[in-house]
Amino acid sequence: MDILNRFYNNEIRALSRIISYVENRSDGYRDLLAKLYKSVGKSLRIGITGPPGAGKSTLVNCLITEFLKLDKKVGVIAVDPTSPFTGGALLGDRVRINEFSGDNNVYFRSMATRGASGGLTTATNNVTVIYDAFGFDITLIETVGVGQVELDIIDNCDIVVVTIVPESGDAVQTMKAGLMEIANIFCVNKADRPGSGRIISELRQTMEHRKKDDDDWRIPVIPTEAVSAKNIDKLIAKILAYVDFVKTNGMFEIHRRKQIQKQIMNVLLYRFQRDFLESLRGNLQLENIINDIYNGKTNPYSVGDQLYNQFSKAD
Amino acid sequence: MDILNRFYNNEIRALSRIISYVENRSDGYRDLLAKLYKSVGKSLRIGITGPPGAGKSTLVNCLITEFLKLDKKVGVIAVDPTSPFTGGALLGDRVRINEFSGDNNVYFRSMATRGASGGLTTATNNVTVIYDAFGFDITLIETVGVGQVELDIIDNCDIVVVTIVPESGDAVQTMKAGLMEIANIFCVNKADRPGSGRIISELRQTMEHRKKDDDDWRIPVIPTEAVSAKNIDKLIAKILAYVDFVKTNGMFEIHRRKQIQKQIMNVLLYRFQRDFLESLRGNLQLENIINDIYNGKTNPYSVGDQLYNQFSKAD
Repeated sequence: MDILNRFYNNEIRALSRIISYVENRSDGYRDLLAKLYKSVGKSLRIGITGPPGAGKSTLVNCLITEFLKLDKKVGVIAVDPTSPFTGGALLGDRVRINEFSGDNNVYFRSMATRGASGGLTTATNNVTVIYDAFGFDITLIETVGVGQVELDIIDNCDIVVVTIVPESGDAVQTMKAGLMEIANIFCVNKADRPGSGRIISELRQTMEHRKKDDDDWRIPVIPTEAVSAKNIDKLIAKILAYVDFVKTNGMFEIHRRKQIQKQIMNVLLYRFQRDFLESLRGNLQLENIINDIYNGKTNPYSVGDQLYNQFSKAD
Repeated sequence: MDILNRFYNNEIRALSRIISYVENRSDGYRDLLAKLYKSVGKSLRIGITGPPGAGKSTLVNCLITEFLKLDKKVGVIAVDPTSPFTGGALLGDRVRINEFSGDNNVYFRSMATRGASGGLTTATNNVTVIYDAFGFDITLIETVGVGQVELDIIDNCDIVVVTIVPESGDAVQTMKAGLMEIANIFCVNKADRPGSGRIISELRQTMEHRKKDDDDWRIPVIPTEAVSAKNIDKLIAKILAYVDFVKTNGMFEIHRRKQIQKQIMNVLLYRFQRDFLESLRGNLQLENIINDIYNGKTNPYSVGDQLYNQFSKAD
């Protein structure tokens, strides 16, 4: 397969085509992923998340620049919630593509949430696998917006950097508990703005009493100014320190194994939805059943059980 | 069953207990739902959605008051994203409970998204079924925040009211397309604020060129001031007009049938996750497989296919 050779020869256009091929679920895409999986396991997955307006895009750009200096190849996945209320970050994405265009060591892909409906985690995982096989040392996964799906994706990262800004103000109070649960590193961006000192010391105080995953990692709070790249070196140092830390105490491997288990579950769920649920659509028997439910003769719970038992081998 | 008698006697405490019973998935909860389903089909499901700060809670309160005047019993479901970034609307909920407390014709339940992970749509559906069986004429479903899950829930409503405020400003530009897709009625709340005139006429102009679901419903744009209950009567009139419209042209029934199909699918997915996926957890065979994947000997795609074929009767 010519395209695969070009892919392994680090041709960005081959990478781009393979991602589209998998995204479109073209024939044989899963065999292709199975093949690529053989060269997987080297890329570090870094999640960047935080509320809208926290400057995540600028921060991601800074991280790219810094990692390039360290001779690392970087793939970016922006999970772009083209949801009714946020509108997505399409413009931002294009700007970034231009900034690094022509550089074969950076690649940027944005994932549309619309239409993916539950498949977004799988779609993001697939791109992660492709990036890894392509040879990117670093995969940056940026999630804009919130929601269960976004949290699932972030959970798939080896390390999570949560970004907030001083203005988050009162919001921080309510957020803190939830943000703490997923953060391995806190980043207070736009730290030159008023109020940053108070938030930084508040966060640091809270972190004192908080340990994650029963380990001894103390979640650092790093003030950054992404627009002038200030303290990005410190942030990267902390990221690498965290990776060292979890690789040494075994948490890195445990987490990766959990992710593999989730990936298997996602493959199973996907097959169930495709092969079984899809086969039901347009089925005449189902039309009659829906009729009966609509007319109050039966209900979705009993029907679901019946259909399920027809399908499953385990009785 | 004593509790069921009290439920059918319109005892709010019995309602409350049955909801908790189902939410906790206590033994036999699905048989209970199947039983309740017999008295289902009368409640109108109205979705209220929009960006944070649009005054949805106040608007919901106004609608409750107005529906009570029309001798309608109202059940409210607030889908409360206790996500890391929004913190949920717990305080707001309590305030509302107090405002209508003692009134047996109103009931308020807030759904926590945390931990529900994919089951939120099902959980919300279940409460909708219980409300309907209890005899609420109106079910108001308020979604705060965004995301695929919230959209799924909103899609389960018979009618969707999208609420925005004049300040949404630029955001409206990017939002509009997405909001239009789910809105049957637009509500510009806090219409006394500056800029509301422009947004209302902009929206109206856009709506001219937009028809939903191939029908001839022209999406109305209604300025409201929820704090002073201004124009709430107009909003209700439009809601009822829409319901008449879709009941006449058959869209109401078509949509309900689609929802029933989705409910069946959700029951199936839930059973698949519970019976099959759960049975895999802690399985020694799976531990070995994960090991093999971690060491690059196989991959989640091939493994998923294998496990799936073991499970499914259809070969």
